[in-house]
Amino acid sequence: MFLRQTKTMTPPASGTAPATTAHGRLTINLGAIAANHDILSRKVGPACQLAGVVKANSYGTGLDRVAPTLFARGCRRFFVATPAEALTLRQILPLAEIAVLGGGLPEARDDYIRYQIEPVLNSLHDIALWREAARQIDKPLPAIIHLDTGMNRLGLAADEARTLIADPALRRGLDIILVMSHFACADEKYHPLTQRQYECFADFARHFPQARKSLANSSGIFRHQDYHFDMVRPGMAIYGLNPTPEAPNPMQLVVTLEARILQTRTLKKGETIGYSATHIFNAPALTATVALGYADGFHRAHSGKAKLYWQGIPCPVVGRVSMDLVTVDLSHLQAPLPQAGDWFEVLGPHQSADQLAESAGTIGYEVLTNLGTRYPRIYREAL
Amino acid sequence: MFLRQTKTMTPPASGTAPATTAHGRLTINLGAIAANHDILSRKVGPACQLAGVVKANSYGTGLDRVAPTLFARGCRRFFVATPAEALTLRQILPLAEIAVLGGGLPEARDDYIRYQIEPVLNSLHDIALWREAARQIDKPLPAIIHLDTGMNRLGLAADEARTLIADPALRRGLDIILVMSHFACADEKYHPLTQRQYECFADFARHFPQARKSLANSSGIFRHQDYHFDMVRPGMAIYGLNPTPEAPNPMQLVVTLEARILQTRTLKKGETIGYSATHIFNAPALTATVALGYADGFHRAHSGKAKLYWQGIPCPVVGRVSMDLVTVDLSHLQAPLPQAGDWFEVLGPHQSADQLAESAGTIGYEVLTNLGTRYPRIYREAL
Repeated sequence: MFLRQTKTMTPPASGTAPATTAHGRLTINLGAIAANHDILSRKVGPACQLAGVVKANSYGTGLDRVAPTLFARGCRRFFVATPAEALTLRQILPLAEIAVLGGGLPEARDDYIRYQIEPVLNSLHDIALWREAARQIDKPLPAIIHLDTGMNRLGLAADEARTLIADPALRRGLDIILVMSHFACADEKYHPLTQRQYECFADFARHFPQARKSLANSSGIFRHQDYHFDMVRPGMAIYGLNPTPEAPNPMQLVVTLEARILQTRTLKKGETIGYSATHIFNAPALTATVALGYADGFHRAHSGKAKLYWQGIPCPVVGRVSMDLVTVDLSHLQAPLPQAGDWFEVLGPHQSADQLAESAGTIGYEVLTNLGTRYPRIYREAL
Repeated sequence: MFLRQTKTMTPPASGTAPATTAHGRLTINLGAIAANHDILSRKVGPACQLAGVVKANSYGTGLDRVAPTLFARGCRRFFVATPAEALTLRQILPLAEIAVLGGGLPEARDDYIRYQIEPVLNSLHDIALWREAARQIDKPLPAIIHLDTGMNRLGLAADEARTLIADPALRRGLDIILVMSHFACADEKYHPLTQRQYECFADFARHFPQARKSLANSSGIFRHQDYHFDMVRPGMAIYGLNPTPEAPNPMQLVVTLEARILQTRTLKKGETIGYSATHIFNAPALTATVALGYADGFHRAHSGKAKLYWQGIPCPVVGRVSMDLVTVDLSHLQAPLPQAGDWFEVLGPHQSADQLAESAGTIGYEVLTNLGTRYPRIYREAL
């Protein structure tokens, strides 16, 4: 054993491993983020503002790099989920307009005012608290009102909306800059709820002629021009997920994830693999043990189902995904075979996050937001 | 809108939200980590060394706090998964003995030598590279040899093991300090593979009389005293997961996760909830929208299945878990009812990580290693 009593050298502090000794590498193409912004921007036209949804660390891709990329393309309005995310974004972008979707908690009020952050007001109670804040500082506060049109998650219920419309006193002291709602099923091309939500929102919004109006998420942008109103709020499409699942993806690939082979193994017929020995080989096999596990966001639900790609060829995951490792079957490959140290594609040109998600019964959003922190992140700059 | 042209105040840099404005809070009980160390230590007795498995950021609980806690309880040997994790741990514990389970990548060799980190050697190829390193620096290097006894994931295959035993020249220049293997099915009390792995390992290990021997993981410790050898390598049991799933958990609870209500809603019969409107209420209902989503590691697979606890009463998740929000049904609760700002228990005394995992068809390990970074971490100090 090394002699620990002597002074041990301590490595320099650094966030993650250098790419050379890393077991995986995550590449975020900021140029594709910028291109996706522009595709969406052209789609909605110059009269409609494009706001960037950058919650959950920009869907796992890195707020500190993505938000400035969007800002540089002209994006000025951003939506986050929590007060903490808003404070982080304010540090990154001092001049951005920042709204907090789950903004209502009263304790965050002072931070909102000090750092010019706008809570999305989801109930008459939220509105009353924000008016009280305006009264205390004795000047009008900008307000964003969220109408629930069918998500039943956040936002004013129909009866609250009627009360707000009927009684202007309830909004005195507030400068209502935006009214908004959120689609529940816009990813399904012909879901009837989408048009009902649109009508319900339009009905409400006409009572606020001074405010901007916003309804469409990524999928909503592609469903109908009527849904664009004054502002769209894309999230997933910026990150390269497919907003039109029934058709080819109009967006550019943003995320590439590669993982490294630690060892290859030859197995005999009848041998088993991994925890609980769930997979039994009924013929001799060649496998690779790859440095990627559920602690890296490669979900355990991929066990026995997902594929990793070797030079474009799919190789099936065999047995259970473990915390740091996954095993793939190489038996169908021809020489030259992959070796220890070689890289598999997990996400990339052959397998999108949407596609990988399918084998775990989930969606690309969860794949992206669960991306791990053990592999280094390599950012390709936008030009 | 706030006037962005004027200078905006920028909040001070901080890792996460202060607990007061946070949407969730994660409490890690370091006292329970220490207690679990001691329970395991007593179980194996003073002749057996307890090594701490602290890979994946100490199973999601925080390496920088957990490793020193274990060290203070007398733990000197630690196992991590990757070279990067080893370097991070070396910064935290300059005097610890650190082994890297997936250690074989040649690029990491110089770091291993400089920072006195030991790669676990998983193949004759790994052994040859490490011998070459010893030759180059012209002194013996400590070596850890991993025999595969049935995981078929990492470690020497049976034929490699025979070759290594037969030819001492293959290990010349190495000081073999530890031989080890890993159980595949020790969590299942009577799985026949466990005893076969034990016999296979014992057979191999007797050829290395100078080396310590290590086989048992957390579950293995509880299965048979013979499995303890000179060193055990618990992971999950330290973090409070149950190493004996067939019996009550002998470990103490380490992780508590609470999430906050953003809004409560009254729904009419026939209304739907969340994305794709998957849940339809067949009676009037009261729900709470809680600030917790799959971006926080609350898996989408919990949709319509998991429960959150309100003062010890389970409340079912209804509809789909979304990125930042989940909805629970409160219709069965009696007054006083939970309000916006109140906290639900996600993990804690009423619901362990093992139990929550069941509703997503996974295991407590994945629940812990996927814990998110948006909620602040509160560490309760060990006494």
